[in-house]
Formats: sequence, C-alpha cells, structure tokens
Amino acid sequence: MTDSQANQMWGGRFAEGPDAIMEAINASIGFDQRLARQDIEGSRAHAAMLAAQGIITDKDAEAIREGLLTVLSEIEGGSFQFSTALEDIHMNVEARLKEVIGEPAGRLHTGRSRNDQVATDFRLWVRDQADAAIGGLEALIRALLTQAEEGADWVMPGFTHLQTAQPVTWGHHMMAYVEMFSRDLGRFTDARKRMNESPLGAAALAGTSFPLDRQMTAEALGFDRPCANSLDAVSDRDFALEFLGAASICAMHLSRFAEELVIWSSAQFRFVALSDRFSTGSSIMPQKKNPDAAELIRAKIGRIFGANVALMTVMKGLPLAYSKDMQEDKEQVFDAADNLMLALAAMTGMVSDMKANVPALEAAAGAGFSTATDLADWLVRVLGMPFRDAHHVTGSLVAKAEGQGCDLPDLTLADMQAVEPRITEEVFGVLGVHNSVASRMSYGGTAPERVREQVAAWKARLDD
Amino acid sequence: MTDSQANQMWGGRFAEGPDAIMEAINASIGFDQRLARQDIEGSRAHAAMLAAQGIITDKDAEAIREGLLTVLSEIEGGSFQFSTALEDIHMNVEARLKEVIGEPAGRLHTGRSRNDQVATDFRLWVRDQADAAIGGLEALIRALLTQAEEGADWVMPGFTHLQTAQPVTWGHHMMAYVEMFSRDLGRFTDARKRMNESPLGAAALAGTSFPLDRQMTAEALGFDRPCANSLDAVSDRDFALEFLGAASICAMHLSRFAEELVIWSSAQFRFVALSDRFSTGSSIMPQKKNPDAAELIRAKIGRIFGANVALMTVMKGLPLAYSKDMQEDKEQVFDAADNLMLALAAMTGMVSDMKANVPALEAAAGAGFSTATDLADWLVRVLGMPFRDAHHVTGSLVAKAEGQGCDLPDLTLADMQAVEPRITEEVFGVLGVHNSVASRMSYGGTAPERVREQVAAWKARLDD
Amino acid sequence: MTDSQANQMWGGRFAEGPDAIMEAINASIGFDQRLARQDIEGSRAHAAMLAAQGIITDKDAEAIREGLLTVLSEIEGGSFQFSTALEDIHMNVEARLKEVIGEPAGRLHTGRSRNDQVATDFRLWVRDQADAAIGGLEALIRALLTQAEEGADWVMPGFTHLQTAQPVTWGHHMMAYVEMFSRDLGRFTDARKRMNESPLGAAALAGTSFPLDRQMTAEALGFDRPCANSLDAVSDRDFALEFLGAASICAMHLSRFAEELVIWSSAQFRFVALSDRFSTGSSIMPQKKNPDAAELIRAKIGRIFGANVALMTVMKGLPLAYSKDMQEDKEQVFDAADNLMLALAAMTGMVSDMKANVPALEAAAGAGFSTATDLADWLVRVLGMPFRDAHHVTGSLVAKAEGQGCDLPDLTLADMQAVEPRITEEVFGVLGVHNSVASRMSYGGTAPERVREQVAAWKARLDD
Amino acid sequence: MTDSQANQMWGGRFAEGPDAIMEAINASIGFDQRLARQDIEGSRAHAAMLAAQGIITDKDAEAIREGLLTVLSEIEGGSFQFSTALEDIHMNVEARLKEVIGEPAGRLHTGRSRNDQVATDFRLWVRDQADAAIGGLEALIRALLTQAEEGADWVMPGFTHLQTAQPVTWGHHMMAYVEMFSRDLGRFTDARKRMNESPLGAAALAGTSFPLDRQMTAEALGFDRPCANSLDAVSDRDFALEFLGAASICAMHLSRFAEELVIWSSAQFRFVALSDRFSTGSSIMPQKKNPDAAELIRAKIGRIFGANVALMTVMKGLPLAYSKDMQEDKEQVFDAADNLMLALAAMTGMVSDMKANVPALEAAAGAGFSTATDLADWLVRVLGMPFRDAHHVTGSLVAKAEGQGCDLPDLTLADMQAVEPRITEEVFGVLGVHNSVASRMSYGGTAPERVREQVAAWKARLDD
Repeated sequence: MTDSQANQMWGGRFAEGPDAIMEAINASIGFDQRLARQDIEGSRAHAAMLAAQGIITDKDAEAIREGLLTVLSEIEGGSFQFSTALEDIHMNVEARLKEVIGEPAGRLHTGRSRNDQVATDFRLWVRDQADAAIGGLEALIRALLTQAEEGADWVMPGFTHLQTAQPVTWGHHMMAYVEMFSRDLGRFTDARKRMNESPLGAAALAGTSFPLDRQMTAEALGFDRPCANSLDAVSDRDFALEFLGAASICAMHLSRFAEELVIWSSAQFRFVALSDRFSTGSSIMPQKKNPDAAELIRAKIGRIFGANVALMTVMKGLPLAYSKDMQEDKEQVFDAADNLMLALAAMTGMVSDMKANVPALEAAAGAGFSTATDLADWLVRVLGMPFRDAHHVTGSLVAKAEGQGCDLPDLTLADMQAVEPRITEEVFGVLGVHNSVASRMSYGGTAPERVREQVAAWKARLDD
Repeated sequence: MTDSQANQMWGGRFAEGPDAIMEAINASIGFDQRLARQDIEGSRAHAAMLAAQGIITDKDAEAIREGLLTVLSEIEGGSFQFSTALEDIHMNVEARLKEVIGEPAGRLHTGRSRNDQVATDFRLWVRDQADAAIGGLEALIRALLTQAEEGADWVMPGFTHLQTAQPVTWGHHMMAYVEMFSRDLGRFTDARKRMNESPLGAAALAGTSFPLDRQMTAEALGFDRPCANSLDAVSDRDFALEFLGAASICAMHLSRFAEELVIWSSAQFRFVALSDRFSTGSSIMPQKKNPDAAELIRAKIGRIFGANVALMTVMKGLPLAYSKDMQEDKEQVFDAADNLMLALAAMTGMVSDMKANVPALEAAAGAGFSTATDLADWLVRVLGMPFRDAHHVTGSLVAKAEGQGCDLPDLTLADMQAVEPRITEEVFGVLGVHNSVASRMSYGGTAPERVREQVAAWKARLDD
Repeated sequence: MTDSQANQMWGGRFAEGPDAIMEAINASIGFDQRLARQDIEGSRAHAAMLAAQGIITDKDAEAIREGLLTVLSEIEGGSFQFSTALEDIHMNVEARLKEVIGEPAGRLHTGRSRNDQVATDFRLWVRDQADAAIGGLEALIRALLTQAEEGADWVMPGFTHLQTAQPVTWGHHMMAYVEMFSRDLGRFTDARKRMNESPLGAAALAGTSFPLDRQMTAEALGFDRPCANSLDAVSDRDFALEFLGAASICAMHLSRFAEELVIWSSAQFRFVALSDRFSTGSSIMPQKKNPDAAELIRAKIGRIFGANVALMTVMKGLPLAYSKDMQEDKEQVFDAADNLMLALAAMTGMVSDMKANVPALEAAAGAGFSTATDLADWLVRVLGMPFRDAHHVTGSLVAKAEGQGCDLPDLTLADMQAVEPRITEEVFGVLGVHNSVASRMSYGGTAPERVREQVAAWKARLDD
Repeated sequence: MTDSQANQMWGGRFAEGPDAIMEAINASIGFDQRLARQDIEGSRAHAAMLAAQGIITDKDAEAIREGLLTVLSEIEGGSFQFSTALEDIHMNVEARLKEVIGEPAGRLHTGRSRNDQVATDFRLWVRDQADAAIGGLEALIRALLTQAEEGADWVMPGFTHLQTAQPVTWGHHMMAYVEMFSRDLGRFTDARKRMNESPLGAAALAGTSFPLDRQMTAEALGFDRPCANSLDAVSDRDFALEFLGAASICAMHLSRFAEELVIWSSAQFRFVALSDRFSTGSSIMPQKKNPDAAELIRAKIGRIFGANVALMTVMKGLPLAYSKDMQEDKEQVFDAADNLMLALAAMTGMVSDMKANVPALEAAAGAGFSTATDLADWLVRVLGMPFRDAHHVTGSLVAKAEGQGCDLPDLTLADMQAVEPRITEEVFGVLGVHNSVASRMSYGGTAPERVREQVAAWKARLDD
C-alpha cells in the first residue's frame, strides 16, 4: 500500500489531501512508534479473543497473530518503513500487516476502535514505566542502605535553615532519603494497581455489539480486569497523570538530595567527594571538578513536573469522550519517564561512588554550639527545670561562650555555675557530638543503634 | 504575657526588634490559627505521654491538658486574642497556657520542637481533609447514581471531538463520572494511608534523649505508627503534595463535567436544565440564566493545581532538614482544600437538581449518521465482511444519504443494494438509536442492562 | 580526532571514562545541534574581532572563518558526524574545525568560554523564534481581517456564560482576536528588544584580560549592545522565560479560539464549516468530520506552558553564575517554539478556509431574548427611566414573552403597555438583531461601521 | 435596602433563594472589596461623562459623584457593612449609594455593565501594582548599588557549579542582580503600558447605543485610550497574566539571591552576616540565627508562579466573551502582588543591612586554583600559544600543584618550566586574586574600574 493509497482509507470524503501543516500537527507516528510492542501485544490478544468468541476464524486469527510478530520483528530490527500519511502506529502496523498476510488483516479491527486501542497501548507502556520506576527506586534505596550502614556512627551537622542545629549521623541522613524514596515506591505501586484495568473492547466509546470477551483480553495483557465504563475507558488519562504526579514528587526528592550534594561538594563544605564518573571539567578552568550529574538531577524536576502541568492543562475542561487534544499525552509522559529513570540511575551511581569526608563532617558537627539542645535537655532531665527555663539558661551560656570566642564544652564549670549554680561536672558528658547522637535513642532518632535497626528492617523488607 | 515580653522569648540575642516587614513576612499566626484544634490535640497527647513516661508529673500533665481545653474553648468561642508578636499558633497557645496554668506550661515543650509540632498539626489537618474529600466524593457519586438509574434508558449522543459519534445512554454517561470520582476516592484513601504516620517526637530533627513513647502519642492521635526517621519527619511535605495531586486530578474531572454542563445548558444544545439554585441572572440582560456554579467549578482546577505547583516549587531543591520556606505550605493547602470541598458540594447540588431534556437528547442522538457504526458492524457480523471493507461500504452509504439530504434509515433498500447487493431488510433493525444502544452489550458498554448492573454494583459497594 | 582522543581534552584529570549513564545525562549534542548555525555565526564574529584587536593574526582568523563555513555546510548537508563523546555542539564544531584547518583552530576559543558561547547561541536562536512568532501572528491577523471584513454585517449571538447575551457581528468577533493577537505581537516585540544584548566576551563569568571589542561582535551578530555584567550574561535565562511567557499567553488565546471552533462545528451549533484540510475522519465512524486541528491547537497551551513551568522550576534558587541545571533550558524552548509556530500556521489555515454559516448565525442571534438590553436601553433613552427600573420592566416583559412561548418582538403593544403604559410603537424598531447591532456605535462597539473602521485601521498598521 | 430586598434585584426569575453553597461559591464580595476605591473612581468618571454627554442631568451626576465619595469614606473608615447577598463590590456600592442619594443612583449603570465595570476596576488595581513593583525594584536596585560601590574592590570567589571558578569582585556580583532587577523593571513598565487601555463603556460585550464618550472616561482614569473592541475588553485578562509573568520572573531572581544569602550565611561559608532584623532564633536551639527572611523570599516564587499557573489554567479554552470562571482572577493576583511587594521590601532591607565578611571572601577567592585561567591566558597572550594548548599546560601545572598540596603561586619557576620551558618569572604577576580581577577589563568584566563605571551609569539612570 502506498501513501497515496493510504489517503484513501478515509473513503472519498476528503477531496483535498491533508497539506503539510495538517500532517505536521496531526500525525503522531513520529512519537507513538514507541508504542509498537504494546500495540502488537494488544492486537494479538484481541485476535485470539475474536477467534475464541467465534467472531473470526481460528485460521484468520492465527494469520493475524503470526503476521503481527513479523511486523514487530521488522520494527525492532529497524527495517520497518514508518509512513506519516498513515498517521499513527496503529494504522502503520495494520497497513503493513495487510501487505504481509492480505485479506484477514481487515478483520482485526472488528469490535474495537483506535480510541480503545491507543488507550490500551499507552496504559501498557505507562505500567511498564511504573515497574521501571519501582526497580530504579529499589536500586537507589539499596545504595543508600549501604552508605547508611557504613556510616551509621559518623557524625555530621544536622542542619535547619542550613545552619548547624544538632549533630546527626551520616547513616541517619541517608535513611531520611530511604523514607522518601520508599514513599515514592508506594505511590508508583498504588498508581500501577489503579491503572491496571483494560480499556480494550470499549470500542469508540459505547462498547460494541460483537460478543467480545473483555475479561479474556484483560487477562492476556496482565490487566486485573476490564474498565467498567466504555466512555470513561477511552477518555481517561488519570493513569498518566497519576504516574506524572508520583514522578514529580520523586523528582522533588531527587532535587533535594542533589542540592545537598552540590553544596557538600563545594570547597567550603567538602563533606563529600563525588566520583569522577559523575563529574566533569571546564573548558577554560582546568582545575574545576564540577558536580554536573548532581546539578542535572536537581534540574530534572523541571521537565517532569512541567509534563504534569502540560497534561493537566490539556485535560482541563475536555468534554467526553475522546478529543484529539488527548494525543498530546504521550510525548509528555515519554519524556518524563525517560528522565526520571535516567535521574534515578545517575543518583544511584553517585550514591554508590561517593565518599564521605568523615573528619570534615565530624569537625563541622561540633561547631556552632550544636549541643546546646543537649545541655538544655540535661537541665530539664537532671535538674527538673521546665523546658522553657532550661532553654533560657542555655541561651545565656551560649552567649557567654560566644563572648569568649569558644564553644560550650570549653566553658569552665565556674562559668556555668555563674549562670545556673546547680550545674555539675556531669554536664560535660552530654556536650560531645558522639555523646549527643548516642543519646538520641527515641524511635526514629539519630542514634547509631537506631539507624542500624532501620537499615536491617529495610533490608529485610527489600529482600522479602 | 504581653507582646513586648513575648519578644524576649528569644533571649537577649536580638537587640533590635523585628520591624514591620519582618513581622509581615515571618509571622504565620494570620493563617496557622486554623490549626488550633490540631495543635491542642497534639499537645494533649504529648503531655499525657510525658507523664506516662515519668518525664513530667501526672499533676503537671493534668494541668496542661485541662488548660489546653480552656484555651481551645477560648479560641473556638472567639474570645482568644491572637498575637502577631508570638508569631504562630504554637507560641500563641503556649503563651496563653502559661497565663492560664502558670509554671507547668513550661514543661510541655519537653522532648519536642516546633518542627515536629507543626508537622503533626498539619498532617492531622490534611488527614481530616482527605476524609472530607472522601465524604464529598461519596455524596457526589450517590447523586450521579440516582441520575444514572433514572436515565438508564434515555438515549443521547455520545460525542467524540464534540461531534456526534454513536448513541449512548444518559445513565452510561453519568456512570463514566462515577468511575472517575471513584478513582479520586481511591487516591485520597491511599494518600490518607500513606500520610498516617506521626512526626511527634522527632523533635527539631535528630530525635531526643528523653525516653519518649512515640507509639503512644501516635495511637492517641489516630496515626498508624510513628515516622521512622526524625530528619524526614520534620522535612517531609509529601502528604500535602500527594493531597494536592489527588485534589488536582479530582478538580480536572470536575472541570470536564462542568464544561459539559455549560455546553449542555446553551440554547443550541438544551440537553439539560440546571436549577435556579445554581444559576444567576445578569445585571443588564434580564433574560439570562447563567450556569455560574458550573463555570466556577470548571475554574477551580486553576487554584487547586496552582497550589500544587506552588508547593512543589517551594520544595524543589530544599536541603534537609527544616527550612523556613516550608512555612509557605499551609495557605496553599488550606485554599485548595476549601475550594475542592466547595466544588464537590456545588457539583453534588447541581447534579441532584438538574433535569435532563429527554426529547432533546433523543433527537440529537439520532442525528449525524450516528448509527453508521451499527451498520458497519452488521455488515461484518451478518455478511462476514472484513471490518475495513464494511467501513468503506458504510462510508459510501453515508455519502449517498448525505447527498440526498437524509439519514441512513431513510435510504431505501435499493439505495443500499446499489452499493452492496447482499444487504437485506434486516439491516434496518440496527439503525434506530434504541436498537443501537441496546445492542452494545459488551462489558462496560452503553446498553441499559449493563448500566443498571453497574449502578447496582456501585450502590452495593457504597453501602458496604 | 577520535572520540577516545576527545576524552583527553579534559587533561589527565579524569582517569575513569564517563560511563553510559553519565553520557546520557550529560551530553547535550542530541539536542543542541540545532544551534549549529548560531554557534558558527558567533564563532565567525569572534574570530574576526580577535584579529581586529590583534589578538590573533588575520591569517588565522581567515582560516577559522573559512573553516567554519566548511563545517556549517557539512552540517547542513547532513554529512557531519556528531560525536556524543564531544558532548555538545561547541566541542563538535571546534574538533571538526581542527581537523579541517589544523592548529589555528586552537586559537578560536581565546577570551571566551562555553558559558558565554552557549548563552550567545541560544539567544540568537530565541531571537529568531521571536521574529518567527511575529511573522506568524501577522499572517494570522491578516486572515482574521479578511474574515472580519467579509462578515462585518453578519449578525451572530454574542455569548456570556455560553448563553446568548446580545447580538454581535461576525466581524466584531473576529476583531476581538485581532486585539488579542496584536497584544501577543507586542509582547514578542518587547521581549526581542530586551533580549537583544550580546553575552559574547563575558567568558566563563568574570570577563577576560584579553582586549576584546565586545561592541564589535555584538554589532556583527545584530545585537543592540553587549550585556553589561559578565556574571549576569552567563547565568541569565530571562530571554527564554520571557519568550515562553509570551508564547504561553498566545497559546491561551489560540486555545480560546480553538474551543469556539470546536463548539461552533458541533451539530448543535453549526455556526461554521471547517475545511477538510484541517479535519479528519474516524476509523470506525465513517460519517465523522472531526475538528482535529482545532483540538490540537487547543491542547498546545499544555506543552508550551508546561515548558514555561519547567524552565522556571529549573531556575528557581540557582546560585550564580552558570550551573549545569541550565542545560535543561533548550529542549523546553525548542519544543515550545516549534509547537507555537505550528499552531499559528494551522490556525491561520483554518481561519482562511473556514466558512461561516450566515443563516444559522443570524437565526441564533435573535433567539433567547437577545435584544432585551436594547429594550431596556430604549426605556432609559426615550422614557428617561433610571436604568435599574428599566431593567426591571424589561425583566417583566421577558417573563411575559417566555410565558407566551414567544420572543420579545412578538409581544403586542398592548402586552407591553400592560407592564409600562408609556411604551410606544417606536420600541419595535430596536428589537431586531440588525437594528440592535447597528445601534451599538460606541467606540469599540459591534456596529458594522465601527468594525469596518477597525479593520481599516489594522490594515494600515500592518502595511506600515 | 435589606439583603432580602437585594435578592429581588434579579427580578422575579429566581423563585428559590440561593442557598449557602451557591452563596459561598458565587459571591465575590469577600475578596473584591479590595477594589472599592477603583470601583468608585470608575463610577465617578462614568457619571461625569454621562452628564457631559447629556445622558443624565448634571444634578444627578453631581449627586452620584458626591454620594460615591460618602460611600468611599464609609468603606475606608471601616463603617461600611458589606453584604454577601449583594454578591460583589459593584452591587454593594450601588445599593448603598441608593440609600444615600435615592433615585439618581439608578441612573449610574446606564451604558455599562458589571462586565466592563469589573474589568476597569481590576485593571486600575493591577496598574497600581505595576507601579508599586517598579517602586520596589528601584529601592532594591539602590540598595544593591550602595553595596556594589562599597565593595567594588573586594574580591570573592566567582562560582560555577558552586565550585570556585575565578575571582570576582563583590561589587560585580551585586551588579549582576542590578541587571536582573532592571530587566524586571522593564517588564513591569512594558506590561503597564500594554494594559493601560480602558474597558469602560464596552458594556456587557457589544458596546452600547448610548452616545458614550469613552475617550473622556479613559482620560479621567489615566488610561492612554479606550480598548478598541468591546468583546475583547470584557474577556481579556492578559493584563493580569502579564503582570503575573513579570512577577514570576522577578520572584525567580529573588529566589536566586535568597539562595545565595542562605548559603553565604552558613557556618561553612560565612561570607555574609545578615542583620538580626531579618533573622530569628529557634525554640529549641538557642544558638541558632536563622536566615528566615531569605528563606521565605526564596519560597515566594512558589505562590507567585502558582498564581500564574492558576490563572492561565482558568483562561485556557474559555469561549468569548465573559465567563464566570474569570471571577477566579482576583484572589490570585492579590496574593501574588502582596507577596511580591513584601519580598521586594524584605530583600531591600536585608541587602541594606547585610555585612560582607571581606577577609573570608578574599581567602575563599584565592583557593582552588582560581587563577588557573589567568595562567592559561598569560600563556596565550605572552607566549602566543593556542588557547587549547595553553589550557592543557595549565592543567598539568594544576595537577602538579595538587600533587604537592599547594596552590599555583606556590610552585617554583623550575616546577613550571619543567612543564613549559618558556614560562618566566613574569607569570607570578597574574596569579594573585587582586591582579586577576584588575585584569578583567573587558566590557562587563569584574575589574573594580568597570564595576564603578556601571554603578555610576545606573545611578545616573535612576536619578534621571
């Protein structure tokens, strides 16, 4: 079939051929060819069902199913000639099928429409991406667990407002991201479950008078069940939006970690050394080692959330059922998914390779009166002061230390007793950073023991 | 405690008072007073736990818990004086508690921080909103089920591209929205489950050295468990973002239905009459009856998704743990939640009140060769033509009818046989709109019988 | 130079080669090859200036400038081999230049950096797109003027809330879009002016110690002046954001018009017939003629505004000067610009081709008591009633007509006088739709005379 | 007029009163009361024009104009009782006017509608905000110029990728923001010019048959001219979107500077000390001085750009002319404008108060081989090496210094000559940071002399 013949598939209705503009704006084959495998899987399941229901013959079904495998191997082998005049992947595949097997090809489209066909293809694709995201997140979580386990005892500054607040452990910090990425994992899992219904057989919008067995095609394609309403089945893009929403929050988490890596790699922080594999140099400044991968990961939230905005905007106010506007769904999700997977992989690589600068972390952890809270807590715990009063006493001691240009542990007992006479030698036991972190044994706290428990629990969960 | 005393809560560190700009940008009491009930619930649970763990006395705990109830009743009674100098709801409540009960008030803040406190308050608030959304969605679904049941047999045009495609039933169209809103319901349910962990006891970021029982406070507040990482607990706003994401998709669904109601109310469509309760007139054109509520609902996706963008943008690239940027979270979620609930309520009211114009729907359903597909399907089913050939024959018959200025059922058998000699009288049985919808018996199809099954299934599910 | 040699351009610093992930996330050559022409223009200007300032020899400059033309012709001829190992367009071009002309190629990069180079290339590209948008808008405005002129007298319903409000003229409606698109034109013009400063010579970020003549390169590249601050020059992406902002508002206008065309093409409205060139059929419903181009144009705001969100998110909170995050700028702008130009072209084609259904427009214009305001205005003008009273009287008359199932002009004088005795025969002169529109002679009003004045004024402006 | 009477302003059409939901979703008086002054200004101009054109009597006009001043003073004095039943500011003002002056109040609404009225009010309000933004930006620019002038000679690290790249001057860094904020200033100026057209007299959508002088009201309200198309005048919200677009880019600039201030305030950087006025303490960590204002400013882009997204989403796909969806415009712009002005003021305060830590800046500027580029440039300039070769030699010298644990100026001449024999003592002259910045004399470069020129030029421009 030539392209000019293809034009005639619309019947004689369109006397004028579509001109270049229309072709450019209308044809989707430039991007929806990525759905080839899903399209062919769906068609094969449909053909088998048509035969099982006696709608087409077994022989036709077999020809169709074999022919589709031939077409798939042509596409995957790179020898397939895509035609813009045939508009989309569905028509390209079907036209080629007709060349390969002849007349039975025309029976494949019985009881379905491009509307349910593309909805099926795209769901299958997005479902694969949800699985890929889950896999990518698990790899990243494992890399974080390795870091957390190794550095369960390393102390570092815990920041609020990027100001040193209290000492925490490296392992604890890594585990904070494990929590975030595990929530992402939960969101992709929920989204996958919710999207796992088959639109196939919804036909154009109303269902069909052919006695389809939609349960059978749903099962063949790994769906949990058929969509329960045919109008909804062809006009729903929630599955794409929910995927984009989960991807956006995940990209936000990645942006936060990436920001930390950029800051930690600065000459001023030197908390971490990123591997050369994920850094680059500069064409004019030979000494530079730039955290490029971290910066690019930080930026990925832009295009991923931009895709979310794009598709939400497209869907706003669209009447039922299918509108052509929805053709704008795929490129956004393709780009967001590709970039999410890339960002997850790059972050996993960076986390695996990075080396914490343990002495620098420890030195920074102790600066800035970071154990002031420990002092305040001691006053409450040992002297029974109300917290607010303890807070005030601690503030005065900090001011005194600051005035003397020293840190809290450098004050003498006399200095301390001048502010609060009941203070004893014992207080110095809580002012070191290792004592501090070890004492934070509350559930979820930064104590190395707590961190090791969490690491073990997460490992068990992943290996489940 | 006066405001000028309040200034001194920071100790002597800030010689200069915050001026008007800083107060305006920094103070959150103008909006976070909405969290009063949650703040007091959290503090009451915290006090009870402190006593149970022997960290404060039972007597102090009792005084605190009673005093907090007094403060709550003042706030809910409208007699509470909020102070901007005290910045936020936490400090306002605690300062008033001190006035009410004196010294024990200072013991409440033991082992916690404003960081875990606000995270707890806000989660409780968002969790309530998830529940409210679920309730609002259920009410809307019930209203749709009532419409669907009443109009299970009414035929109307099924549109694609806003062009009449095939006849569908009113009930089927209503049930498409039931599917959408039930997915929203699932998303809010999943989000509620994922957010239902208690940050309380994470303290500033590192946990605490006080022997808190975080499980106990979690249970008291209805949380499933404590957050497992204190750094994450205070720097996580996923629960708000996931709520906004679910709300945005829900608002998108509302915008689609609202768009349909606006179009259906036009003089050109007249498919539906909205009640006066949800319409208004015009100050200059007395004859107008405008679908204001529908338009406003259509617009709500703007601010709801805008809030999602706002908070995602805020969170992008924030290093751990708490940063003041996060204070910008609440107003966005407050506004989005308020408007979502309002839009759900207004839509439920409109759906309950609206009257379908059954004759107009039926007349429109039959226009535009809407049963052309039925004809094509008949050619496949009865004559065994390949679908693509049947499609071509049908196109020719439509062209013929169009040329004669009539509809398909108005063609004579001779007209038909001139195109395809094997066509028989029997074909006229599939060309009426009622025959058409009745024939679409595939699962999820538009046949009245199928619609009634779905209505019954949904009712059972809701009443479960 | 082979790819493995290319790796060594970074000096010996990176012992490990970048692996596949890093290459995938880091290399920009996959998309920035679109900047080849701009890159070469910039380099040619730079080389000429280096020679004029005596920094390199005239002979070297000549070799470089000629060699670059050779490289450009290879790229445009399709014979150029892009290398991912060489990362970006700048390195690809320079490496090839070295192969072509040898040693002088190494002198080209004197006094500049990739930071100012890419900023220059991208500005030139965006500037071209601003020009293209201006051209596209002018073509669309001309098409609208033609429609407006032809239909200056055709009456149609003016809608508010999609309810018939008052009659307007087709020409007036077309001219509303002329106003919108002319504001877009103004925004692109302003943006172009603001962006037209040359970053070239800002070097990495600090300027350079070579005695560059930045004014000379600015002029050679058509810039108004060099950027005044080198740090800003390399870290500024306002030009891209402002372009995306203007494109987004323009896409919003297109979405509004497209929405109208979709509604107007429905069987219920039939206000307009779109040409076959911008419509398609359906694979299952042979009778359909779908306004695909209009729907796709309506959707384009999604990806265009999504790109705006994406880049704004990327830029949020980036410290000076260049960060690798900014590499995410180009794909967004490329996609947005391509789609804007396509949407403008498609809309221009549709507007040129579309046929108004004049009788349907006129019939609809008169329905729904659309001249009620004319009646109210007559009561004010002729009887001297306060407007609010006139409004009330009109409301009663509409109610009476509605009760009788007729329109306002069908009421008898007696009917009218029963409500307001001072009404005379004269009132019937204002109740017809042609009288109505002819009377709205206020500046900017819908009267055909006013519309023709505006058309003439706009034509004169465009031909200026 | 009581609220129950007010209900009857719609005539008898709405038998059922609007219930609570409808009132909640429909009434705008809760927020549009902010437009009171603009509404009254517009009405006063309209009344004067009606009299000048002989449409109402001078006496009535005078009564209306005086009465409106009374109403305004009641509103501004806080004694006005806003009524939700009267829906919006327009009806509230007019109803009160009727109470104050009686019957002539009913003549005010002649020849206009709420559609053009609200468009006028809102434009006037947004225009004021554009002026406020311009004023706020000028103040901020002045504060930056003061910092730039004081620190024109101070050296600091110029960063790319947050890695030290080359030394720059403090003044140069400040001036980069002057460039950004001056582009913002240009955008607000352009937007103000484009929006400065009067919608008043467009009436509901079609213009009016009353002989209005729209030029007169335009002039009275400070508009440049009347809007040229009445349909566009009432359905255009470009002015709000363009304001939000300019505000968003400005907020992005603020976020970048705020990010730098947060990083610079960290214990690791200590580049700057923010004043206590714009910092706060912590309730649990007495030693903390948190850059709260900077963090809040960094976050403001969220809600400002969120508002842009919100309004763009609302406007997407709205058919002409007015739709009630547009009522969602005001709250977004109010919130964005308030927060932009607050952020500008807070940033101006912070910039005015902040103290650069000059020794820390200078020490950091010299670290990290920051003058490697100067060395490379010297090799090109003095030895005539091609830049790419010079870059390679420099890389080897950096590697040598790194191997010895020293900086470039610490290498001996013998060390250098071992790599490149032609190097002479003279090279040490370019390796100090002060030499480095002084040498970057290219236009826009970081040399103190260049910075002072720019400061002087900007001062002259502002005082113009």
